[in-house]
Amino acid sequence: MDGTSTDGAGVDVIVLGAGPAGENVAGRCARAGLAVAIVERELVGGECSYWGCIPSKTLLRPGEVLAAARRVPGAAAAVTGRLDVAAVLARRDELVGDYHDDGQVPWLTERGVELVRGTGRLTGRPREVRVFLADGGQRLLVASRAVVLATGTRATIPPVPGLAEAEPWDNRSATGARHVPRSLVVLGGGAVGAELAQAFRRLGGESVTVVEGAPRLLAREEEFVGDEVRAAFEAEGITVLVDTRATAVHRPPAHRADQRRPQVSVQVTGPAGVVRELVADEILVAAGRTPATDDLGLETIGSRPGGFVEVDEHLRARAVPQGWLYAVGDVCGRALLTHMGKYQARIAADVIVGRHDSAGRPARDHADGRAVPRVTFTDPQVAAVGLTERAAREAGLAVRAVRVPTGGVAGASVRGTGAVGTSMLVIEEDRRVVVGATFTGADTQELLHAATVAIVGEVSLDRLWHAVPAFPTVSEVWLGLLEEYGL
Amino acid sequence: MDGTSTDGAGVDVIVLGAGPAGENVAGRCARAGLAVAIVERELVGGECSYWGCIPSKTLLRPGEVLAAARRVPGAAAAVTGRLDVAAVLARRDELVGDYHDDGQVPWLTERGVELVRGTGRLTGRPREVRVFLADGGQRLLVASRAVVLATGTRATIPPVPGLAEAEPWDNRSATGARHVPRSLVVLGGGAVGAELAQAFRRLGGESVTVVEGAPRLLAREEEFVGDEVRAAFEAEGITVLVDTRATAVHRPPAHRADQRRPQVSVQVTGPAGVVRELVADEILVAAGRTPATDDLGLETIGSRPGGFVEVDEHLRARAVPQGWLYAVGDVCGRALLTHMGKYQARIAADVIVGRHDSAGRPARDHADGRAVPRVTFTDPQVAAVGLTERAAREAGLAVRAVRVPTGGVAGASVRGTGAVGTSMLVIEEDRRVVVGATFTGADTQELLHAATVAIVGEVSLDRLWHAVPAFPTVSEVWLGLLEEYGL
Repeated sequence: MDGTSTDGAGVDVIVLGAGPAGENVAGRCARAGLAVAIVERELVGGECSYWGCIPSKTLLRPGEVLAAARRVPGAAAAVTGRLDVAAVLARRDELVGDYHDDGQVPWLTERGVELVRGTGRLTGRPREVRVFLADGGQRLLVASRAVVLATGTRATIPPVPGLAEAEPWDNRSATGARHVPRSLVVLGGGAVGAELAQAFRRLGGESVTVVEGAPRLLAREEEFVGDEVRAAFEAEGITVLVDTRATAVHRPPAHRADQRRPQVSVQVTGPAGVVRELVADEILVAAGRTPATDDLGLETIGSRPGGFVEVDEHLRARAVPQGWLYAVGDVCGRALLTHMGKYQARIAADVIVGRHDSAGRPARDHADGRAVPRVTFTDPQVAAVGLTERAAREAGLAVRAVRVPTGGVAGASVRGTGAVGTSMLVIEEDRRVVVGATFTGADTQELLHAATVAIVGEVSLDRLWHAVPAFPTVSEVWLGLLEEYGL
Repeated sequence: MDGTSTDGAGVDVIVLGAGPAGENVAGRCARAGLAVAIVERELVGGECSYWGCIPSKTLLRPGEVLAAARRVPGAAAAVTGRLDVAAVLARRDELVGDYHDDGQVPWLTERGVELVRGTGRLTGRPREVRVFLADGGQRLLVASRAVVLATGTRATIPPVPGLAEAEPWDNRSATGARHVPRSLVVLGGGAVGAELAQAFRRLGGESVTVVEGAPRLLAREEEFVGDEVRAAFEAEGITVLVDTRATAVHRPPAHRADQRRPQVSVQVTGPAGVVRELVADEILVAAGRTPATDDLGLETIGSRPGGFVEVDEHLRARAVPQGWLYAVGDVCGRALLTHMGKYQARIAADVIVGRHDSAGRPARDHADGRAVPRVTFTDPQVAAVGLTERAAREAGLAVRAVRVPTGGVAGASVRGTGAVGTSMLVIEEDRRVVVGATFTGADTQELLHAATVAIVGEVSLDRLWHAVPAFPTVSEVWLGLLEEYGL
């Protein structure tokens, strides 16, 4: 049997991938008394912990808090020194556990989850997974209840001639940077590209250029979002090229192995077909994500390896009608955000353990497409949840949008955040409920959850009118928004 | 007629007091087409704008944002200089409009509200007010609909022997300070006392001592609140004396008028009757508020001058059964907070103009006693809404409280806020809804509104479970709290 040991006995659930989604489905199933094995080929904690949210926000925060201090008269005078890049990178290393998972494994083991180091693959038999162990052996696991796919995504490298050969940075190399490139070209102006562009600019990059194919940055959000972020970026010396795509990349080979990498040259085609050449020390690709499903054995369930795993509202893979296969997190393609992966994990776990709601219904995903919150941690920040005005109209809803300046409330004045940003609610007229909200401005991240609660709770405007924001907080934008609506 | 001009003709509503509450009732009545006169004897904008929230938060913010920067590795290195006190005081002067109301008057006049500078007094005839004009004359106003009292409160000076004679600072002198006392004693550890104590400490006061009669600071909040704030205060060198009252104060007279004021000596009696003497450059009284109603003519409606004006849920004064007299803001004694005064103003205006809700009912105060949000802008901040656990039990509710560390979420780690603070929900078990919430920690002010929406919206826990907080925001404490409850 080619070194395979079989010991499925006693395992109820097998989880493939120990990122935030996998960890949560495993932990929650274990909490309910099930025997769980989780298979991980890299680090327990996943992309988010080591190469995603955690390091990227850690790289952004020093610049953000210093910018905040510089905007406050009296505090600005105390900011006389320079940001200490080495200290920032050391803090990054600390928060990613020096790229070891010793700090994260106990969360699993304390919950009785068995950690199997290796790469798991569906065999084609129900609830069976073959693990190619990290130490070279194999192990066959059979679950009594469910197999959950939670293997996440990796950076997409678009098929631009010369790009792959130029060995570009992706989110991993960028968040793990050991130095700040003097000049940087960022392909992609979504959340990842925008955040990392600003991080490296504020860490001292002399030249940072964002290349975005859409007409604006953060193109899936309300239109003012991209315009405001672009204006802020340009004001701090970041070049933003919209309606522009990379068409060729060239990096000459290094002459000697110990030499610094030669600069990369990036040919971009902008509006009206105008071609320009950008030259930079480094190029970062932030052009979307590709599911990490090439090697999962998806062909055994009739699906395409390398694709997302389509699921129903219970997070069950549609390709397996018997219902034993689940997918949560990025790999299911619903909403590629850590918190949504964790949410899906909680739902999937409750479905697996048979936990019902107070009305006796099985758990299901109530948030997808309706109440997905998202925060881009640039400065200004962008916090949004639910539908944009355009998406709401395209969904056939009769909506009215209202907006007020985020910087217009007294709370923004006393914080010294400046008169920047916009707060907007998208309101469904028939039901008089909020279906979408966007808050841009300095440090708007915590404004969002009130909107998420209002959307999920379907709290009517007539009730919201009695939810008084405290003075002088920035949450007073809520009052302005409701008054603007006519309350 | 002793110089009195009578021109009530055409006035629908008379508002006494042009602070935030008065301004809002006037503006909202005017927006509905009513003719409104507002009477103000000091500055349009009121206590909050010149001597309350605005200057106090402006004095606190520089220290807060520098403390935040010092906690972030990499940013801390840039904070090498000293806070510039002169710049802070200049910014304070700017935000209080140099104690002129030129910047605030247009808000009224643009809405067609007539501003009458003087002191208004009820005459005893229905809807009639005599104004003792600032320029020396008198004017008799008669409203066709309503008179609204919105004259606010002033600092209470407790009857401690020698205290009044020592000419102590109150919120006006403290927020308007032109220098930072080297040593300061603060009588009262509520929101005002705690905030100003920390402000003057962080602005460079060498010795700051808070004297609080209750067993803890911010004694009306959850017990952990006062303990946490005290620990933070003590860590930064503020002395906190609880269970302690001032029993005598003495300040010798200055020898010459141009001399600096002699130090004040404060005798305090602490636990077990131990008496101590505190000596300081300045003493600040922050021991509650007294309604500014001595001179309003309350005796003409059978009420006690100097007392609060008791109102019903429509903000109508109970002493006037005909219903033409309203009171909003501090003066009605419901919740002495700017935002609640503004809220009451909106309700009263809607009652006055006859605006009904979608079910045809007149407007009424839905928040009082149930969903009053309050933020103390110390560091750590204290944000709370609704009932404390104790208040809920005293109200006969079957509740369960859950808590998690605010600093325990990833969002707190990446912000570098430190492992401080507590987040707590008080949940009514029968209805499975939130009835109270408290968030302490660095910069928790914007966490609050989600709780206010949940309380006012009566959003069940089973719904809240699907309101996903974004990663990595501090709002993820919501997830921890609901998991702690058992979801």
